[in-house]
Amino acid sequence: MLKAAYYEGSRNVRIGECLSEAPGPDQVQLNVSYCGICGTDLHLFRGNMDHRVHIPQVFGHEVSGTIHAVGDRVKKFKPGDHATVRPLDPCGACPACRAGHSHVCQKLKFIGIDAPGALQALWTVPAHTLHLLPSSLSLETGALVEPLAVACHDVRRARLKSGEYAVIQGGGPIGMLMAIVAKQTGAKVLITEVNPFRLKLARELGFEVMNPLKDDIVSYVTEQTHTAGADVVFEVSGSAAGAASMTKLARVRGRIALVAVFSEAPKVDLFQFFWRELELVGTRLYEPQDFEQAIELASSGTLPLGRLISEVCSLEKVPSALRQLESGGEAMKILVHCSEE
Amino acid sequence: MLKAAYYEGSRNVRIGECLSEAPGPDQVQLNVSYCGICGTDLHLFRGNMDHRVHIPQVFGHEVSGTIHAVGDRVKKFKPGDHATVRPLDPCGACPACRAGHSHVCQKLKFIGIDAPGALQALWTVPAHTLHLLPSSLSLETGALVEPLAVACHDVRRARLKSGEYAVIQGGGPIGMLMAIVAKQTGAKVLITEVNPFRLKLARELGFEVMNPLKDDIVSYVTEQTHTAGADVVFEVSGSAAGAASMTKLARVRGRIALVAVFSEAPKVDLFQFFWRELELVGTRLYEPQDFEQAIELASSGTLPLGRLISEVCSLEKVPSALRQLESGGEAMKILVHCSEE
Repeated sequence: MLKAAYYEGSRNVRIGECLSEAPGPDQVQLNVSYCGICGTDLHLFRGNMDHRVHIPQVFGHEVSGTIHAVGDRVKKFKPGDHATVRPLDPCGACPACRAGHSHVCQKLKFIGIDAPGALQALWTVPAHTLHLLPSSLSLETGALVEPLAVACHDVRRARLKSGEYAVIQGGGPIGMLMAIVAKQTGAKVLITEVNPFRLKLARELGFEVMNPLKDDIVSYVTEQTHTAGADVVFEVSGSAAGAASMTKLARVRGRIALVAVFSEAPKVDLFQFFWRELELVGTRLYEPQDFEQAIELASSGTLPLGRLISEVCSLEKVPSALRQLESGGEAMKILVHCSEE
Repeated sequence: MLKAAYYEGSRNVRIGECLSEAPGPDQVQLNVSYCGICGTDLHLFRGNMDHRVHIPQVFGHEVSGTIHAVGDRVKKFKPGDHATVRPLDPCGACPACRAGHSHVCQKLKFIGIDAPGALQALWTVPAHTLHLLPSSLSLETGALVEPLAVACHDVRRARLKSGEYAVIQGGGPIGMLMAIVAKQTGAKVLITEVNPFRLKLARELGFEVMNPLKDDIVSYVTEQTHTAGADVVFEVSGSAAGAASMTKLARVRGRIALVAVFSEAPKVDLFQFFWRELELVGTRLYEPQDFEQAIELASSGTLPLGRLISEVCSLEKVPSALRQLESGGEAMKILVHCSEE
């Protein structure tokens, strides 16, 4: 039996039969090799998206796979191709779509939340969501392209340039990928994080790291930048402490990229925005060019992406993997091996 | 006797003798025609800048006048010229100055707070702070060039374009000047304000106005923009309510220009920055090009600047004018006639 992981509400995930829908004329059916578990999946597991999710729902969206079948009208892809999915289905008609910002469509359907996701052996998606992966790229690394595209989008929105000083507040998977992209851009990177496992991994990857619970990061950055402050602060922590430190770290006319999902509105020192003409740039998901950049970066083979994969498990292990990520212990990116191929 | 208004601490202003300093080699002595009273002056009067001010201090900085004398090395200006002052004295050496942002110099001296100001008959300032005013421009209107330059800077920082929808939260002098500049840019403008006097004046000047204490502004803007939201929100109110509404009013990828001085950090809905990829741009003071634009706009004669002058008084009336502005009653811009010419 081909399997799938279903969210059933109230922190329950059941392993059941794969949906295995034959592709419609403009669809593609993917044989899912790997699907990464994302913070959003954890959010969904905790019931925070119950207002959007039709239970039971197959979830997951960080995917790599081999094309299994294509619909009649699909010309760009053929069975056997390796691919990943940009899991966005915008309405095409709202003001955001018409202004060219369809990735933040006002009625965006996110495939894996609002429509069935990738934690299954065979996954049928609209052909417009597919990006080909070169055969030289391993399918394990291919499953990191989606979160890497998030990082590419964030770095691009922040207009980070070579030689600039960037502070990344939060060293989880997205923060770490962002650090990798920022370093590749030629920036100096400091990661701030409290989890010892993540601190250790960031250090092993060659990044400068500090712990805001122990270190005086503002003094350090002020000194390192000859009193200027950081050119860019990436706020990925989603914490009140992160919202407080972001305005302290940025230089005059510095940019703060707001990447984290804040479930509560924190206090923000708006005076500093005025006083130092700071800029706050919200950044969400990705556009096609971010996927293209992510595939190019991943394919270069020079980035330590494999080091972020802390575990590869089977579909049956999805419930325990979610609990492991929730405990915040020794985990970074967990990949789920979905098909039997 | 030539007079001056001195801040003496603890909400005291004394009328005393003008400083009348002969200009040094790179200085100019201005015969001050008019000096507007600004929110910053009120702030100073209340003691909020006592850590910066050397008491007793002549204050004021929104000025127009006739050049009385020039220093030996001054070639660009001559006695009899009409001029206004960009009251900024940057250090020239800090990272902000070196990056070309000297108006937000990390050690900025603001003339009128950190050095003697314009509420006196004769005022001596560095020649680099001067901008010539055309003789066709009345000196009353010339005293509005400094706050008009603030408005030009804000509109420029917000990248407001013709045809865009702008909400200006706060209809005091700066908000009103911003509305005038935004309208001149070709934008649709909605002013939100609670003070009935200011609401009435804004309406008389042809602006659409709403009162956040009575009207559902978010619903109105949503409807007016066909569900998109405002392209730009100018936050000039400095209130917690303003900080809350700014994120509700802006469209996907909308810009919020942060103009107000927030003395306390309000709660800010950072989730909306992520969700709709909003942008917050802090904006303070002005650069030389903003003064040039302000002088050009003021000289065009097409803007209703005179309507913002609610009163012209003598130097002796400065203490009562400050109290009148503080009461928030029927006042917009009060000009002080400083010289006897």
